[in-house]
Amino acid sequence: MTTETVKKEQLYLGIDGGGTKCRAVIVSSERGLLGSGLAGPANAFYGVEKTITAIMDSTRLAIADAGLSEDIIPHLIAGIGLAGVNLAGVKAEVESWPHPFVDMHVTTDLQAACIGAHEGSDGAVIIIGTGSCGYSLVNGKEICLGGYGFPQGDNGSGAWMGLEVIKYVLLALDGMVPATLMTKQVLAQLECQNALELVVATAGKPSSHFARLARIVFECANLGDEAATRILKEGADYISKLARKLNENQPPRMSLMGGISEPLFSWLDDDVQQLISPLLAPPEIGAILFAKAQQHPKPLARSMA
Amino acid sequence: MTTETVKKEQLYLGIDGGGTKCRAVIVSSERGLLGSGLAGPANAFYGVEKTITAIMDSTRLAIADAGLSEDIIPHLIAGIGLAGVNLAGVKAEVESWPHPFVDMHVTTDLQAACIGAHEGSDGAVIIIGTGSCGYSLVNGKEICLGGYGFPQGDNGSGAWMGLEVIKYVLLALDGMVPATLMTKQVLAQLECQNALELVVATAGKPSSHFARLARIVFECANLGDEAATRILKEGADYISKLARKLNENQPPRMSLMGGISEPLFSWLDDDVQQLISPLLAPPEIGAILFAKAQQHPKPLARSMA
Repeated sequence: MTTETVKKEQLYLGIDGGGTKCRAVIVSSERGLLGSGLAGPANAFYGVEKTITAIMDSTRLAIADAGLSEDIIPHLIAGIGLAGVNLAGVKAEVESWPHPFVDMHVTTDLQAACIGAHEGSDGAVIIIGTGSCGYSLVNGKEICLGGYGFPQGDNGSGAWMGLEVIKYVLLALDGMVPATLMTKQVLAQLECQNALELVVATAGKPSSHFARLARIVFECANLGDEAATRILKEGADYISKLARKLNENQPPRMSLMGGISEPLFSWLDDDVQQLISPLLAPPEIGAILFAKAQQHPKPLARSMA
Repeated sequence: MTTETVKKEQLYLGIDGGGTKCRAVIVSSERGLLGSGLAGPANAFYGVEKTITAIMDSTRLAIADAGLSEDIIPHLIAGIGLAGVNLAGVKAEVESWPHPFVDMHVTTDLQAACIGAHEGSDGAVIIIGTGSCGYSLVNGKEICLGGYGFPQGDNGSGAWMGLEVIKYVLLALDGMVPATLMTKQVLAQLECQNALELVVATAGKPSSHFARLARIVFECANLGDEAATRILKEGADYISKLARKLNENQPPRMSLMGGISEPLFSWLDDDVQQLISPLLAPPEIGAILFAKAQQHPKPLARSMA
């Protein structure tokens, strides 16, 4: 396959840009996925310039991965899902970028994820990774719940669990609550002997630092650790409530995604577990489905696929 | 009174340096308090140079307030209570300062506060302001509980209450918990209409920003607001437990101090309220009592006054 051959098909670029990484895929209308690439953070709220750099870096990697050359870029229809563009000003700034593509359509990472999860049909997603949030898109109406960041929001997320764990360990070191297997494991993982060292190891650290402790909570809860179980139940309770709240909008499907979603699933209430369907496609494919829907003037998220 | 007269007495400088301000007092062995001065932050953990500047600024203001001239400085015996010198390295750095006083004795802000609260006798203090912590000094043995900073520690403090309030309001804006008088007042005080504005108004802000919301929690709880009452009860419950834990060390006296201590008092458990005695002297006087005790080789905190 040569670049010249590929140009005769319609080529799409799908971007999923978030706080930790930016993923790009090149998809051909004829032959599906051709290649993918991964670059640095692309949350547009924290800098549109940096985000654009991440988009282009990941795009070039995806093109190379597909065995194509960069003169394909002006032929790409780009679907761009980005964190941060829920703010109108940030979105306008991204859209004002003199991009190198034949066409570009920008939406939020959440909408791209939801469109992907249900392959263009209406639905809802709950994302539980370092942060947490819920999103539904039903008859063109968007609802977004949570996702307010660390430490004030993102309940039930990895970072939230990590902070709850640190709070518990500090209380345990003061003799205010019982020391448990979980407190020992946290101190071992962070290589701390006492509260002062624990504060130095955690204070002011980014949410991803706290999220790394979530694994300990799951492990210890599964071994019956009471403190870990209490934290996990509180987090799962919030996610269950979030799912029920999203369900009020009657999405035909609902999916979970993000690094914490799999281990947390069995902790959700039974009625919520019943609501959950598998992901059909990843967010970067969702971004392409979004771009296709914008190319053809059809009502959003009805029959995009 | 002239500077020359004063020099014939023993003069003391007392410093209470913390994260938001540095207070200095000049005290004469013959005539008590001569003057006081207030300068900027003096938490040595965040910079010894800045702390020394704050010490000298507040000292000069106290000297001016006393109607004295600065050539009194080399005659002062300085007692310095500082946040941050619980770390040995930070304390050593402060002590290596080629200070301009006849003598200087450095201790933690907590020890100075405790010595002041009980006028040199053994005792315990619980400080509840922007942050929170407990400290006791009994037979020369120090115990320090809490005070691990925001958001991982400082339970029951103003900043802790503020964060709990913001978390509640964000849940209420998502329809996950009931909106109450408290949620309306918080949005009004921060001039926010929705969750996104509330996140922008609070995310990444220092703990003092959150502590400003504590007033609303007290006001609304006193009016019967359920959400405010639940937060206040949880905070007070921690402080009650902290007091009981400190009491295990059998301090002869225990006092509360800090901006939240007065409104929180009536929310503490009855047995804890019974434990609390009034403050006898402020921390900067405690710092002077500490310096006096170091001048005379007596066991720490037995008969300093």
